[in-house]
Amino acid sequence: MSLSLILLAAGQGSRMQSDLPKVLHKVAGAPLLHHAMTAGRQLNPGKTVVVTGHGAEEVAASARAFDDEVSVVLQAEQLGTGHAVAQAAEALQGESGDAIVLYGDTPFIRPETLEAMLEARQRHAVVVLGFEAADPGRYGRLILEGDGLTKIVEFKDATEAERAVRLCNSGVICAETATLFELVAAVNNENASGEYYLTDIVALARDRGLSAGVVLCDEAETMGINTRAELAKAEAAFQARARAEALDLGITLTAPETVFFALDTVVGRDAVIGPNVVFGPGVTVESGAEIKAFCHLEGCHISRGATVGPFARLRPGAEIGEDGHIGNFVEVKNAILGEGVKVNHLTYIGDADIGDGTNIGAGTVTCNYDGVMKHRTVIGKSAFIGSDTMLVAPVKVGDGAMTGSGSVITEDVPAGAVALGRARQVTKEGLATRLFEKLRAIKAARG
Amino acid sequence: MSLSLILLAAGQGSRMQSDLPKVLHKVAGAPLLHHAMTAGRQLNPGKTVVVTGHGAEEVAASARAFDDEVSVVLQAEQLGTGHAVAQAAEALQGESGDAIVLYGDTPFIRPETLEAMLEARQRHAVVVLGFEAADPGRYGRLILEGDGLTKIVEFKDATEAERAVRLCNSGVICAETATLFELVAAVNNENASGEYYLTDIVALARDRGLSAGVVLCDEAETMGINTRAELAKAEAAFQARARAEALDLGITLTAPETVFFALDTVVGRDAVIGPNVVFGPGVTVESGAEIKAFCHLEGCHISRGATVGPFARLRPGAEIGEDGHIGNFVEVKNAILGEGVKVNHLTYIGDADIGDGTNIGAGTVTCNYDGVMKHRTVIGKSAFIGSDTMLVAPVKVGDGAMTGSGSVITEDVPAGAVALGRARQVTKEGLATRLFEKLRAIKAARG
Amino acid sequence: MSLSLILLAAGQGSRMQSDLPKVLHKVAGAPLLHHAMTAGRQLNPGKTVVVTGHGAEEVAASARAFDDEVSVVLQAEQLGTGHAVAQAAEALQGESGDAIVLYGDTPFIRPETLEAMLEARQRHAVVVLGFEAADPGRYGRLILEGDGLTKIVEFKDATEAERAVRLCNSGVICAETATLFELVAAVNNENASGEYYLTDIVALARDRGLSAGVVLCDEAETMGINTRAELAKAEAAFQARARAEALDLGITLTAPETVFFALDTVVGRDAVIGPNVVFGPGVTVESGAEIKAFCHLEGCHISRGATVGPFARLRPGAEIGEDGHIGNFVEVKNAILGEGVKVNHLTYIGDADIGDGTNIGAGTVTCNYDGVMKHRTVIGKSAFIGSDTMLVAPVKVGDGAMTGSGSVITEDVPAGAVALGRARQVTKEGLATRLFEKLRAIKAARG
Repeated sequence: MSLSLILLAAGQGSRMQSDLPKVLHKVAGAPLLHHAMTAGRQLNPGKTVVVTGHGAEEVAASARAFDDEVSVVLQAEQLGTGHAVAQAAEALQGESGDAIVLYGDTPFIRPETLEAMLEARQRHAVVVLGFEAADPGRYGRLILEGDGLTKIVEFKDATEAERAVRLCNSGVICAETATLFELVAAVNNENASGEYYLTDIVALARDRGLSAGVVLCDEAETMGINTRAELAKAEAAFQARARAEALDLGITLTAPETVFFALDTVVGRDAVIGPNVVFGPGVTVESGAEIKAFCHLEGCHISRGATVGPFARLRPGAEIGEDGHIGNFVEVKNAILGEGVKVNHLTYIGDADIGDGTNIGAGTVTCNYDGVMKHRTVIGKSAFIGSDTMLVAPVKVGDGAMTGSGSVITEDVPAGAVALGRARQVTKEGLATRLFEKLRAIKAARG
Repeated sequence: MSLSLILLAAGQGSRMQSDLPKVLHKVAGAPLLHHAMTAGRQLNPGKTVVVTGHGAEEVAASARAFDDEVSVVLQAEQLGTGHAVAQAAEALQGESGDAIVLYGDTPFIRPETLEAMLEARQRHAVVVLGFEAADPGRYGRLILEGDGLTKIVEFKDATEAERAVRLCNSGVICAETATLFELVAAVNNENASGEYYLTDIVALARDRGLSAGVVLCDEAETMGINTRAELAKAEAAFQARARAEALDLGITLTAPETVFFALDTVVGRDAVIGPNVVFGPGVTVESGAEIKAFCHLEGCHISRGATVGPFARLRPGAEIGEDGHIGNFVEVKNAILGEGVKVNHLTYIGDADIGDGTNIGAGTVTCNYDGVMKHRTVIGKSAFIGSDTMLVAPVKVGDGAMTGSGSVITEDVPAGAVALGRARQVTKEGLATRLFEKLRAIKAARG
Repeated sequence: MSLSLILLAAGQGSRMQSDLPKVLHKVAGAPLLHHAMTAGRQLNPGKTVVVTGHGAEEVAASARAFDDEVSVVLQAEQLGTGHAVAQAAEALQGESGDAIVLYGDTPFIRPETLEAMLEARQRHAVVVLGFEAADPGRYGRLILEGDGLTKIVEFKDATEAERAVRLCNSGVICAETATLFELVAAVNNENASGEYYLTDIVALARDRGLSAGVVLCDEAETMGINTRAELAKAEAAFQARARAEALDLGITLTAPETVFFALDTVVGRDAVIGPNVVFGPGVTVESGAEIKAFCHLEGCHISRGATVGPFARLRPGAEIGEDGHIGNFVEVKNAILGEGVKVNHLTYIGDADIGDGTNIGAGTVTCNYDGVMKHRTVIGKSAFIGSDTMLVAPVKVGDGAMTGSGSVITEDVPAGAVALGRARQVTKEGLATRLFEKLRAIKAARG
């Protein structure tokens, strides 16, 4: 007996004013859909079904990128939430256990909340997630009788007394899988909108003598995204929570309001993060590392004692070893840097391995692209790469080797060797004086 | 019959504590004066007169930079707003139609508001712009009788009952041009401050049997700037409005509070703008382009599907073609980049043309300045510029050509050719080991 | 007769969740300890004693770095504030004059407040610093009788009536030095916590017929730091104050909320500071200089009329001359740049002197490190350093000299000379076309 998740992700989101399907808009560097899937995954579900509609292919691809075992079904026409859930029936045929219906545009439901719903299922056939709304507005109202939920009334159908109720419907529902689909199959569209409403299953369940109950969560968890402004508000809500958690964990954020975390950022205790640091997906920072101001980090690992920035960009596959130094105007991508490696200024390291204790001079470039393919640069330990060295990959530099400033290195350099590739300096006395005179004369003549 | 604008821009703004004339301080990248002129221009005025005083030359130059047909007059002594308006009389001699008096330090009056004033002129000889003040404080009060304005009372002259009025005077006034100057000529300075007040024309009009009326606007429109703190507050107000408008237009702003727009920024639907992006004047971004975090953009155009940043700086004259890539630590100035051009790392492109599909390697520089003059670099389509190529302009690189990493290109490169300008690599075995030993010995000897 | 300061800095700060002693966590780029020492120093004290405990060595080193004449004593066991003060007795043996007890984790007490306490000492033997708490919570309460302080009651020992008092104890105390130590010696630890409380000296003083008084300060001054969240809040409080002060001084901050000042930042009138500028310790900016967006400045001096950024990093020892230009992706460290020097793009200047009017091309590097030692580069006036010049220090370039783009300069260049160090360009017709074909074939073969 295992849990099934049904994720509704078919909506167009026309108020987003976007060609991108709504659930693919991002918060904290991840599509809204992934937020809902992340919460669901904590429950260790047996099956997850994503119901797609608008932008079905893109949404399916994004869902599979998150979890390649997910089932994707298509809701060809958007006829309501009840109809959407019904599309998952075939994919969950024969599943025992409970099913929970989640929404791809509702990123903040906590796993703990879903667990409370599962627990409430021991007392009720259908469990609805509700919240006390600060401003209930036009939300559907949950009408209780003792412990039980008697019905969900849409705002427009509600009496004065019912409208006075502040307990509102989040839309998230849990029921035994087979029961859910039986009830959903009985939903009709005989209402003003002509839609099949998932919420109708509560009344249908009661008609069959099944009990319905409510689990409450914080209103903030139920925040749904319908506009860019709401998307920005969701981002702000995510960041506020992530920043507070980071501070609680013993991380220094000089200016928390200027640090942007991703959904999966992991930072160790006693790390120090300066102002204006942006974390993309997939970053881990070990204890005691320091990220200075103006850094942009994605898919990288920063080890204990390392210092990064200001003005550093670490891209996917960058691994910075213990006590490493990544300085200003430095980009590192798909490269493993050993302990104590220093890359302090104006450098591009891509597709490379660099051994412990090596120093990379300012203006160095790993020339990893030949116009068609990418190649790797391998540098040993305690090497000294002179400023403005071009390392034309594939190429190797041995332990303790040196390269001269301004050299183009096209052949491997053995350990302990010096490689130079530059012309000898020629100095022409008085020439600058004459050149300046000439150039100024030309300029003057041109007016 | 056409509209005339009179822009008062003579004040010193001593509370700004600045050598710069007050109206030249900037909000959203533009002098305050230009904000008022922008609103005025929407009305398609026949003539615009700017009244200068403190810093007259600088203010005149700024006004003319915005609109070279503007008339500039000098108010040699600052004797009050009535006196300031009187200085425009000669420049507007013989103009029929209405005149509106605007203020160079009041940047947020909306064109719609000014149009409402012109419309109200059909009912009243003099139309004053008023607002309901949240805290009326020491503002002049507008005293109404039915639809008509009976008088404007200065706070210090107001009775208890008049002080209780919350309808306040913005200073913006509209009247038929000849009437305005007749009334202004009749204003005297027999008051405590010894100044000629423009507001006195309301009472003078009434004395002559002319009616006066009021048009209301939001208090936020009337915000005037007197201190740096107010300047910062005005900037914040501008940005808050611009960010909200961008979201409404279907633009994604990950962190709206960190994006700074200019007065004239244009961004298309479905563009994505990361945290910490600063727009200077003259930027257009097409639909679906992406501006990553930490970008600084001025006077540039970014086409559909292009990606810019993080850490990119585009300066005036930069045009990025469709699907172009501008990466980190890249500066582009006065350069036209074709479709799909990639400039991914640590590069300076200035005064250049780059054809479709060309790839520019890391560390490349267009050497556009010879110490006296600037020259242009022209690169063809599908070329491959190796890392650290110096393109010594004027120089041309043909379609499909390549340059070797670390080359200094001083002569034109034909299409399909490879150009190299670098010394052959020389490798000296064991030398690095000996050099390190020697250097360490010297250091040790020096203590 | 001179003033003594006793700074308590022994606490662990376990709620910081940090290996770093609490007083070494930073606000505005300076350890909390230095904030308290900065306030104390304004009073021109004869002796300053820092009482260390947790992380004693690190705290002592930090205290001495701020003021090398400071005395450091160790409180081996943390037995309470009274016990901590007692540790300073020996170091202040024989001192006449007053002593003030300050706290290393309370950074915002103003010198004016301390002066008011010294002044109040003329009327009272013991002077306690108090504040009206917005929410008195569990603070100790100050119980007054007329002008005199009768006692300090801990919250847990307070009656209902005493708890209703909103006047709270900051912990800062002032007394004649010998008296202070006599009273402290009489404090016992017979209370629930088993600690020696400094506050007990008030009752002990009264018992001996000595009067005690209170000086009030703003609650914001008494803010103590116990968690990372409080540290971030203190940073925000510091910055809010510093930004407001900067605006009042006639400095333009486009977006004040994005500018971070250090404790010792000095900026002149009419300087303009763009969004996202971070000041580390030791920066002075003269009047009329402009710092554009995204700059990171530490230990540097920027002269009148100079322009810095965007995306510039100035490190300790950088001196930018009048009307100098430091552009994007430029790092300057330990270098003196003369009047009108331009370093506009992608450059590293370290350990250098650059004469008036010299222009440094894009991609230039002062190669100051040979792998073991640092060396200096000296460039004269009105020189022209071509793009991508490597200046291998120690090296000198004379007045009005030029270097060719892409040159590696290893030998001194006389005034007026041109130095070149590059290979002649070789162009191979058709080779790029053949190379691209070959590379694409290899790629296709590899699949």
